[in-house]
Amino acid sequence: MIPKGKIILFPCPIVEGKTESLSAESIRFLHQTTFFMVEKAKTARHFIKSTKHPVPIPQLIIHEITENKKEDESFLAHTLNGEDVGVISEAGCPGIADPGSEIVDWAHRNGVKVMPLVGPSSIFMALMASGLNGQNFAFNGYLSNKKPLLIQELKALELKNQKSGQTQIFMETPYRNIFMIESCIESLQNHTRLCIACDINGETEDIRQKTIKEWKKEKFDHFHKRPCIYLIG
Amino acid sequence: MIPKGKIILFPCPIVEGKTESLSAESIRFLHQTTFFMVEKAKTARHFIKSTKHPVPIPQLIIHEITENKKEDESFLAHTLNGEDVGVISEAGCPGIADPGSEIVDWAHRNGVKVMPLVGPSSIFMALMASGLNGQNFAFNGYLSNKKPLLIQELKALELKNQKSGQTQIFMETPYRNIFMIESCIESLQNHTRLCIACDINGETEDIRQKTIKEWKKEKFDHFHKRPCIYLIG
Repeated sequence: MIPKGKIILFPCPIVEGKTESLSAESIRFLHQTTFFMVEKAKTARHFIKSTKHPVPIPQLIIHEITENKKEDESFLAHTLNGEDVGVISEAGCPGIADPGSEIVDWAHRNGVKVMPLVGPSSIFMALMASGLNGQNFAFNGYLSNKKPLLIQELKALELKNQKSGQTQIFMETPYRNIFMIESCIESLQNHTRLCIACDINGETEDIRQKTIKEWKKEKFDHFHKRPCIYLIG
Repeated sequence: MIPKGKIILFPCPIVEGKTESLSAESIRFLHQTTFFMVEKAKTARHFIKSTKHPVPIPQLIIHEITENKKEDESFLAHTLNGEDVGVISEAGCPGIADPGSEIVDWAHRNGVKVMPLVGPSSIFMALMASGLNGQNFAFNGYLSNKKPLLIQELKALELKNQKSGQTQIFMETPYRNIFMIESCIESLQNHTRLCIACDINGETEDIRQKTIKEWKKEKFDHFHKRPCIYLIG
């Protein structure tokens, strides 16, 4: 019997083309892998090429993750035939605020080894750089884009933080940053701390943590359309 | 006026001496830094040396993070004089289940830029490799080591997960792994999924996600005294 292949989880740069943010180990394994399941084939090819993969890109077997479970599982079956399959999402770590967890779940149900590799995660880098509680934290994904509901959700996160000290992390689509910051200022208490982590790992990285009282005195137009992670503590 | 220095957050390997798990960017910045605030001077020196830092180790200025806020802040004042100060914890990312957040908080209150770098985090690697929900998750640190209280806490985490789908992550000291796994099996429901991520990033890495019903059929003595992260989904 051929030994089974592995599912290898390859984080990719948050800042396009920044291979310097990858671990040497991750690049080494990437260069040994020729089967990939990816969020988007075009950007994945671009990323793999940027790492100087020794195999010509057209010779790699790249499968886009579909909504069709059967198709995905039939590709995953390569691992049962001894091939390693690499998983790559659009930016950061597969399976964390990104597709990938269904593939990994399949691996566990089929006795296929899963190997996570080290790489960039904007959520983790934001948390590290926030100065907020890193012993107890929660990531909540995207909140509502409807103002009344958003305000309810923000107040609920603030209350959770006050009760347990748990740092509350969430995201917003870049073009709604000003809406999000205004909503925070409107709905959170003066002494609550808000960290905005903008353009993480980029040249223009800008990470600030202030109380709501202090944010009220700031201008924040410059956050418009830039990727931000939010943390309440 | 001299421009202020930065606080640079350097993750370090989870597996001792494994510099291959660091990003090239992180090593580049490490080699430009000569002032450090660290959890433990001895291991930090050992780590810095393993990266082939161009400055002889005895010439680096290394300050152990104390419980004495004044001493720490007087060292941090180097940033006000234009020096970058690197922060290094024992393993993984400073400020995440590790010391560092007070330093970063000081930086934000003093207008000092904070720069997080890419590196290993056992919590994030465990989450990626768990196949559980990575859109909504919480890290809860250590739970109680008293059985009745631990069982209450485990049931509460399970209930939270059932209500919101939020993956619940926690740790245990290696010599209590068997106690923890037995407590999970005793207190959680048959269909609840438990991931045990053991020796992450090491040669003997072993990450398994199963339902409690399946765990009941397994032997788990081999987890004894090995570092594990637990996830309920």
